[in-house]
Amino acid sequence: MKLTPANRAALITLSSDFGPGSHFVGVMHGVISVLAPVTRIIDLCHTIRPHDRRQAGRLMAANYRYFPAGSIHVVVVDPGVGSQRRIILLKTSGHYFLAPDNGIISLIATDTPKSLVWSVKRPDLYLTPLSRTFHGRDVFAPLAAHLALGESPETMGRRLEPGELAQLKPARPLLDYELKQISGTVIDVDHFGNIITNISRETVNNFFVDSAITIDIGGRQLRGLASYYDEVTPGSVVVLFNSGELLEIAVNRGRACDFLQIKADDRVIVSEMG
Amino acid sequence: MKLTPANRAALITLSSDFGPGSHFVGVMHGVISVLAPVTRIIDLCHTIRPHDRRQAGRLMAANYRYFPAGSIHVVVVDPGVGSQRRIILLKTSGHYFLAPDNGIISLIATDTPKSLVWSVKRPDLYLTPLSRTFHGRDVFAPLAAHLALGESPETMGRRLEPGELAQLKPARPLLDYELKQISGTVIDVDHFGNIITNISRETVNNFFVDSAITIDIGGRQLRGLASYYDEVTPGSVVVLFNSGELLEIAVNRGRACDFLQIKADDRVIVSEMG
Amino acid sequence: MKLTPANRAALITLSSDFGPGSHFVGVMHGVISVLAPVTRIIDLCHTIRPHDRRQAGRLMAANYRYFPAGSIHVVVVDPGVGSQRRIILLKTSGHYFLAPDNGIISLIATDTPKSLVWSVKRPDLYLTPLSRTFHGRDVFAPLAAHLALGESPETMGRRLEPGELAQLKPARPLLDYELKQISGTVIDVDHFGNIITNISRETVNNFFVDSAITIDIGGRQLRGLASYYDEVTPGSVVVLFNSGELLEIAVNRGRACDFLQIKADDRVIVSEMG
Repeated sequence: MKLTPANRAALITLSSDFGPGSHFVGVMHGVISVLAPVTRIIDLCHTIRPHDRRQAGRLMAANYRYFPAGSIHVVVVDPGVGSQRRIILLKTSGHYFLAPDNGIISLIATDTPKSLVWSVKRPDLYLTPLSRTFHGRDVFAPLAAHLALGESPETMGRRLEPGELAQLKPARPLLDYELKQISGTVIDVDHFGNIITNISRETVNNFFVDSAITIDIGGRQLRGLASYYDEVTPGSVVVLFNSGELLEIAVNRGRACDFLQIKADDRVIVSEMG
Repeated sequence: MKLTPANRAALITLSSDFGPGSHFVGVMHGVISVLAPVTRIIDLCHTIRPHDRRQAGRLMAANYRYFPAGSIHVVVVDPGVGSQRRIILLKTSGHYFLAPDNGIISLIATDTPKSLVWSVKRPDLYLTPLSRTFHGRDVFAPLAAHLALGESPETMGRRLEPGELAQLKPARPLLDYELKQISGTVIDVDHFGNIITNISRETVNNFFVDSAITIDIGGRQLRGLASYYDEVTPGSVVVLFNSGELLEIAVNRGRACDFLQIKADDRVIVSEMG
Repeated sequence: MKLTPANRAALITLSSDFGPGSHFVGVMHGVISVLAPVTRIIDLCHTIRPHDRRQAGRLMAANYRYFPAGSIHVVVVDPGVGSQRRIILLKTSGHYFLAPDNGIISLIATDTPKSLVWSVKRPDLYLTPLSRTFHGRDVFAPLAAHLALGESPETMGRRLEPGELAQLKPARPLLDYELKQISGTVIDVDHFGNIITNISRETVNNFFVDSAITIDIGGRQLRGLASYYDEVTPGSVVVLFNSGELLEIAVNRGRACDFLQIKADDRVIVSEMG
C-alpha cells in the first residue's frame, strides 16, 4: 500500500549527532513541549557520526517520506554552531526541514525544483541568553515549535534561491566505461556491521543492464547478488541492495565489517562477472 | 498495588536489535504515525544483541505485563527477513505480539494454553515497494498500525496451532539430583556489568528448599544470598535474585563482569553450602 | 524569548544510568502509561554514568528549567536501591523531583530556600511483588504517575527540612588568591569528546575580572577564550564557556579527550595570562 497520511497534525522529528539517550536531545524535547505542548515529537536518528553532514543529508533524503506530510524535520549536525552560518528552512514535497546552512539541505533539495528555501532570522523566538554552542536548544527547538503552532514559513526569514545554499556534493560513484566498472566507496557501517556503499541499484542496473556482477572489496572478490541476508548460510558473505536501494555487503548473522576488515571511506569496485 | 490499566487505548511497543537512536527505529515510528496518528508508541528495548532471538523472547515474556492490556508489542529481531519465514500474530493474556516466526513467539506463548496464534498474510497492507531487508518499516509497522486502528486479528491471516510455531527451547538450567547442584549459564551481562543467569528463584527454592547455597562462577566460590546490592560494601561481590526473579551476580557500585571475567554463555553452578 | 509554558498539563521526565534503549527505561514508560495513560513522558537523559549521583544532580539542576512548570522529574541513579534509603519528593521553582535520598536532591535544592521536601512513604502505590533491585519500575514510576494524576504532594509522606536530606557537596573549584589561579577538575567528557570542567563563567569573571586567561590541562598551556567551536581551524583546540556556562576544552570537529589524553577527574588550572 502507499503511505498516505491520515491527517496533517504537526509532527516534529529530531535528528542529530548528539548520541542516543543524550540530555541534549531530552532538553530539545523539553523546549518544544513548553512552547507547543500537543505537538508530537519523534526521534528520527541520533547516531549520526559527530559532525558528519553527508551522513545527515543522506539520512534525511532517504527517510523523510516515511513521516506524515507537513512534518517538521530538525537536523542538528552543526559544527559551525555559534558562527555566522545561516539557519535554513526548506519546504519540499510537503515536508519542512530546519538545519544549519552547511550542506545538509543541499543533499535533500538537490532534485526538487519546486523546493522553497528561507534563510531564517527570528531572534525574537530564540531562547535568551542565547548560547553559542547549543542552538538545538536555543534556536532550532523554538523555531520548530513555532512552525508546529502554525506560523507561516514566510515569516521566518527571507527567501533564498536553492543555488545560494551551502553545497555538499553527494559522494557519487565513478562510472568507468573503459574498464567497464563502477568505483564506489563505503559510506557507512551500520549497527549490525553491514557495509553500506554509495552505489545504488539504479546505477548498477543502468550500467550493467542484465549482466551478472562481481564486487571487489577488502582484497576479496564476491560474485553475484542475493535478495536477502538469509539466502546464504550463516557466517557467509552476502551482497544485496538494501532497504535504501544501496549496494550492501553483509555476513548472514555476522559482522561484515569485522570479517572483511572494512571501514567507512574504503573502496568498492563493481564489474561484470568474468 | 496491582497494575490495573486505566483504559484500553491502543498502544504499540517496539523492541528490536537495531540499537538505540537508530533511524531504523525512527522510521518505524514514522510509518505508524502516518497510518495511526493518535496511537502512542513506546520503545520497550532496542539493545537486544543482534539476531539474538532468545534474548528477545525472554525480554518480552518478562516485561509485557507492565504495559496496558490491549497493547501491541512489535519485536523485530529478524535474521530471516525477506525469506519465506512467516509473520506471527499472537494474542495472549490480553496482549498482542507481532514477530517473525523464528522462535521468539514460542518463548512468550509457552505456558498459556488460551493463546491464539495467526500466520499473518496481508500484502495489501505492506508498504510498496516491499524491501527484503527492512520489514520493520514495510511490514511490521503497518500491521501494528492497522491493529491499533481496530482491525480484527481474524482478518490478519489464518489461525495456527501453537505447535505449528517455530520453536526455541528456553535455555533451562540442569538439575543434578546426585551431585545436588544446579548447573546454569550466564544469559546476559547488563549495562551495569551485572551477570544474569538462567536460574530462577523458584528453581533454587524448589531444589534446595531452605538450605543456604554456594555459587561457583569464574573459578570463584560465592557464599550466600543477599536481597539488594548495597547489602555488601562497595566493591564487593553480591549474589541475589533480581527484578526478573533470576539469580544475578553483581559487584556493589562496580562491574561484576570485569571483576569476575565473565561473559554470556559462561557456566554457573549452585550447590548446597558445605 | 523567555521560555514561558503554554499550559500546565502533567509531564514526566525520566533520567537514569540505565543506558539508552534499555528495557529498564521502556518498562518505566509502560507502568506510567498503565496508570496515567494520557501523561506525556520525555526521556531527559539515560547516559548518566552508572551510580554517578553528582552527574545526575548537576544534570537536573542545569536542565529542569527547559521543561514546563509542573513537570515531574524522576531521577533513578540509585546504588542503594532496596536498602532503607529514603525516597524524596522535592518541589522547587514550580517543578517536582523524585529521587532516592542519596545526595542528588541536595544538588538541585541547594540555593532555593522556598523548596519543599517530603520523605515519601506510599507502599499502597508500589507495585507488588516489590522488587529490591528495580524501584524505577516498582516505586518511582507509580509515584510519578499518581502525582501526574493530581495527587497532592502532601499525601506522599512527611515533610522534611532540606537540612535533613542526604548531602553531596558540589565539586567546586578551588580559588587560590595567592597563586592567582583557579584549580578545577574535569567533571565530564561528552559524546563529542569535549572536556567539561567544574569552572563556571561566573567564577572566572569574578576572579579575573577583565584579564585574559591561560588554561593548563594535560601538560599543555592553552591561551585565551573563544566563543564558539568553529572560531579556530578544524583540528585545533578551543576553550570556551559552553551552553551550561562551564569552561569547556574542545577540538573543532575533533575529540579533545583523545587529543589531550584527558579523562574525568583530571585537573585543570586557570591563571592570568602571563
